[in-house]
Amino acid sequence: MSQYEARAERVDGLLAGQGLDLMLVTNLVNVRYLCGFSGTNGICLVGPQTRVFVTDFRYAERAGSGEVPDYDVVQGERDLLGDVARLAQERVRDGALRLGFEDDEISVSRHARLLSLLPEPVELVPAGGLVQRLRRAKDVEELARMRRAAALADDVYRWLIDEHGLAGHTERAVARALERRAEDSGADRVSFSPIVAAAANGALPHAEPEEVEIARGTLVVVDLGCLLDGYCSDCTRTFATGPLDSETLDAYELVRGAQAASVKAVRAGEQARTVDAAAREPIAAAGLAKQFGHGTGHGVGLEVHEAPRLAPSSDDVLEESNCVTIEPGVYLPGRFGVRIEDLVVVNPDGCDVMTSIARELITV
Amino acid sequence: MSQYEARAERVDGLLAGQGLDLMLVTNLVNVRYLCGFSGTNGICLVGPQTRVFVTDFRYAERAGSGEVPDYDVVQGERDLLGDVARLAQERVRDGALRLGFEDDEISVSRHARLLSLLPEPVELVPAGGLVQRLRRAKDVEELARMRRAAALADDVYRWLIDEHGLAGHTERAVARALERRAEDSGADRVSFSPIVAAAANGALPHAEPEEVEIARGTLVVVDLGCLLDGYCSDCTRTFATGPLDSETLDAYELVRGAQAASVKAVRAGEQARTVDAAAREPIAAAGLAKQFGHGTGHGVGLEVHEAPRLAPSSDDVLEESNCVTIEPGVYLPGRFGVRIEDLVVVNPDGCDVMTSIARELITV
Repeated sequence: MSQYEARAERVDGLLAGQGLDLMLVTNLVNVRYLCGFSGTNGICLVGPQTRVFVTDFRYAERAGSGEVPDYDVVQGERDLLGDVARLAQERVRDGALRLGFEDDEISVSRHARLLSLLPEPVELVPAGGLVQRLRRAKDVEELARMRRAAALADDVYRWLIDEHGLAGHTERAVARALERRAEDSGADRVSFSPIVAAAANGALPHAEPEEVEIARGTLVVVDLGCLLDGYCSDCTRTFATGPLDSETLDAYELVRGAQAASVKAVRAGEQARTVDAAAREPIAAAGLAKQFGHGTGHGVGLEVHEAPRLAPSSDDVLEESNCVTIEPGVYLPGRFGVRIEDLVVVNPDGCDVMTSIARELITV
Repeated sequence: MSQYEARAERVDGLLAGQGLDLMLVTNLVNVRYLCGFSGTNGICLVGPQTRVFVTDFRYAERAGSGEVPDYDVVQGERDLLGDVARLAQERVRDGALRLGFEDDEISVSRHARLLSLLPEPVELVPAGGLVQRLRRAKDVEELARMRRAAALADDVYRWLIDEHGLAGHTERAVARALERRAEDSGADRVSFSPIVAAAANGALPHAEPEEVEIARGTLVVVDLGCLLDGYCSDCTRTFATGPLDSETLDAYELVRGAQAASVKAVRAGEQARTVDAAAREPIAAAGLAKQFGHGTGHGVGLEVHEAPRLAPSSDDVLEESNCVTIEPGVYLPGRFGVRIEDLVVVNPDGCDVMTSIARELITV
């Protein structure tokens, strides 16, 4: 059985429990996950005896000639919704069809248009998150792709440390160099625009690289991932560019300890919020609770941010073959930031860390 | 008056006509247009006496310290919707508030959550497209940015033609070289992944560059734009890599004539579908109507595809300072494609073509 058919059967298996006859998948990442399509306009209809993919003329040829092997490929109008209505109508049985739709993706106006096109017996039922739920646990091929994407990012980090350097370059020049190195190393591209944030800029968790030269004797937060065959990696390291004062070194070691404690807390069956707390408690104990204003981690896969979510407010439970980041940080406005992030695969007894770059402070 | 305040006043001016008291702007491109914010989580509330921007802790500092100069910056929760509900409640007058929202952007589930948070007197009214409508006509500063973005793409094309070349490189290598040249020339980045599609691959209007070497004696479609200070350019040229047979040359000249006729049809007050027809008719007359399966053009600005739309089914009317592409093409499956695309600014008597690369067939 192909990976796509296996995934569709997992959808089939969830439908009855949600009172659904058929699932309409409009989120393009979910579409890619289910059928392989990587273009910008396509939808899947999935349910027992139904594997239909609809796209417009721009993509019909490539979808039909190999990219979407396990689905019936239908060439529809650009809007696709009229085709969905027709296909749904054909599947009405005993005067009814309960059609699940992704209410977390489809817009209010597109939903209204679809409603107006659907025949009376078809009922639209909110079912957002159903495919995202399946995407949490990676299969063997997905894990292999993620390991390759993580290894590529590691290679780029090693090149940064051993060959390229930080001090004397601008943040933006380093970010661009990292992107190019990732591509030249075999990545399809970076999985997000790299962050290179020195000194006070590092105190902004989502800083954009600036045209300012990186000084000696400061911290630099570097956050980089690679995209390979559709799958993302994500890794952060904070480097020194020379000798640091003891307060800065203490902040680094605090985050390093918190990150290690959180990695140690990961295992299948654990509450995501417990893993978050393992990182948060030592930081809070040092009086820096408010300087760690984001969650400890997130799932990674076809998207660089996906389920589950590791944060105090999360109700998620970690399960085997989830791929998640563990990335606590502290951010001291006007001074510096520290974040250390690994990508790990959850297993029954703990986790495998996919990131191979040392966590001890490295001076570049 | 700043550009942002001028735009907000244009929103103010539209609200009464739509029966609205206040507009909730959630589309991030519209948010950027209205207040300058360029991060990934923020909303605007705009109406008479209301200029409020809400974001989360990650962006509050940079928004408050200069990026969003003309709005009251509110730091809210990550979700932002609870803050919207509170701010809306504060603005209820005489027991009512008609709050416009972007029904073409907000998801069904997010809309439902907002509804559940809003107090009784607040009515949510669909108003999608209101800000997009304003974005069609560019102001002086926007036109200057677009000209710079277009000039950058032209520079990259000249470098491709004069220095880099096509035959003997893979499509993908050329695409990557174009991206890097754009960045090295001063672009923030390319405005979309460049298309480099030789021979039969050129017959796919949205081809992805492949790891195949470009041969001599064929056509290569190159579609490239630059992003600068938030604004996009978009330009397509089809090059020869050596002598071509007469049928191929005829197809090229057909598209060139159609493109020139369409450019000539552009002026403020003209129906977009008439400009489309000016390109479509000569191609249809040559028996290739079905080989031109997309619209003749689209607006460009903060997004590389925005309103208006130039297509047979469009009801849009061109107006002064619209920036649109004119890009007819013909696609012969299994053989080759031709597309020629300029970016033009609509004026009362015609248009200014921003693209400066020759339209005659160039052998590279």
